[in-house]
Amino acid sequence: MKLKRSSRLVDMTAYLLRHPHQVISLSYFSERYESAKSSISEDLTIIKENFESQEIGWLQTQAGATGGVSYLPSMGCREAEQLLGHLQKQMAQKERLLPGGYLYMTDILGKPDYVNAIGRLIASIFIDEHVDAVMTMETKGIPLAYAVATQQNVPVVVVRRISKVTEGSTVSINYISGSSRRIQTMVLPRRSLKAHARVLIVDDFMKAGGTMKGMANLVAEFGAEVAGVAVFVETKDEHPKLVDHYVSLLKLSIPGQKEMLSIENGNVYKWLSGAGTLESRT
Amino acid sequence: MKLKRSSRLVDMTAYLLRHPHQVISLSYFSERYESAKSSISEDLTIIKENFESQEIGWLQTQAGATGGVSYLPSMGCREAEQLLGHLQKQMAQKERLLPGGYLYMTDILGKPDYVNAIGRLIASIFIDEHVDAVMTMETKGIPLAYAVATQQNVPVVVVRRISKVTEGSTVSINYISGSSRRIQTMVLPRRSLKAHARVLIVDDFMKAGGTMKGMANLVAEFGAEVAGVAVFVETKDEHPKLVDHYVSLLKLSIPGQKEMLSIENGNVYKWLSGAGTLESRT
Repeated sequence: MKLKRSSRLVDMTAYLLRHPHQVISLSYFSERYESAKSSISEDLTIIKENFESQEIGWLQTQAGATGGVSYLPSMGCREAEQLLGHLQKQMAQKERLLPGGYLYMTDILGKPDYVNAIGRLIASIFIDEHVDAVMTMETKGIPLAYAVATQQNVPVVVVRRISKVTEGSTVSINYISGSSRRIQTMVLPRRSLKAHARVLIVDDFMKAGGTMKGMANLVAEFGAEVAGVAVFVETKDEHPKLVDHYVSLLKLSIPGQKEMLSIENGNVYKWLSGAGTLESRT
Repeated sequence: MKLKRSSRLVDMTAYLLRHPHQVISLSYFSERYESAKSSISEDLTIIKENFESQEIGWLQTQAGATGGVSYLPSMGCREAEQLLGHLQKQMAQKERLLPGGYLYMTDILGKPDYVNAIGRLIASIFIDEHVDAVMTMETKGIPLAYAVATQQNVPVVVVRRISKVTEGSTVSINYISGSSRRIQTMVLPRRSLKAHARVLIVDDFMKAGGTMKGMANLVAEFGAEVAGVAVFVETKDEHPKLVDHYVSLLKLSIPGQKEMLSIENGNVYKWLSGAGTLESRT
């Protein structure tokens, strides 16, 4: 189809947003719109400037025969601050406190717009980490894991507590739950992870970090490597966590035995300034 | 920010795609770009034409004081056919057959691009159904449910087999699994569904339909109503399913006792021609 610049811009924007982290050749666009590559290049410059000024991501251009353009979704510090502030306010409601130091957050993690925004923030932080797969533990971490994986265009692998008939042969390991000190099992289908894959581990909640550490061990069991660890909410404890170098978006503390809770920022800001976010690239 | 038309088109396209099923007032865009509403209207006409010719959705304009524009994601018949053909081919591999008549599809449901495309197809079919929430049963249906809910901008409620400490008080019902004939339990947090909500039930796999029927009963228990039922893969059986009026994308049959399987289209085409898809609106 032969399109005018205005229609090309709409179509290319929609196409790029729907195909993150995929290299699209200039020839593809050039044929799609029956337009010269030079026109396509000009269009891409307009889109690039807009994406960057709106802080919704990067257009990366590769030169050469296999060259093209790819869209890397990102979140600017301004939007990240707004999101975190908003989540913090939502989470600080006292009614959320449940027995055992847990927090009711099913409603928040049930809303796709929150979940997708959190996913985009986490994907932003690991934008340069060449992630091959996102791993999570069933079940609450699943939506977050898919939200991150959608932005990075990589598969999700879901670790389970018991093996399911529908998943074929599995690899299982035992681990010690950090907070309850019980021995537990986690399993992953044998076909789900390749050796040397770089795995981003994502979960909704971390207390001592035993589950996270278990997942890291499972990654090692497959001959793969951990590209990063990210959690939505961590608890504030006296003891250090069982994993290092994790990203946390929010930090929950329940002071004393009272029915009170406080939510502060996790360590995310440290990562935001260091990682592949907009500020560090401009 | 004052923007030229070309930049406005890029920005508006990105904004609309990221805010499906939300009414955005013309004033919002007009202030955002410091442009006259007449220019914004012209931009929206260009975007609307493009979205419709590309079959990626509708721009619906509401007149009046609360008026504005909203983007309703959709999938055209051509893209739906391609997607279904592709999935059918992937699923028909003999190695996928597992004991008990199950199918290994963890890899397919692990890929966000497949899952999101399936979600867009299902959302398309129920585009006019005024869905308030998407319901699924843990755990395999969760990614599909979020993919549908993202397109429709509604929350997801996840039904569990046992209640979790992190979800507060719950409502539970017993149901009979259609295929194994065992009595099972399903639970849902009390706070997760409002009376009169219109619920779209989504799952990955349906044999006899007992789980689906259980979920429909659970919806009724909350005083809510079923807006629709959609499943990725159903099995081909002699007996009718325990639920009526469901949408299935693919149909699996395992003829005889041999190690063979065949995958054909589900009843989705019947729905595609009748529902709010592009063909029926143009």
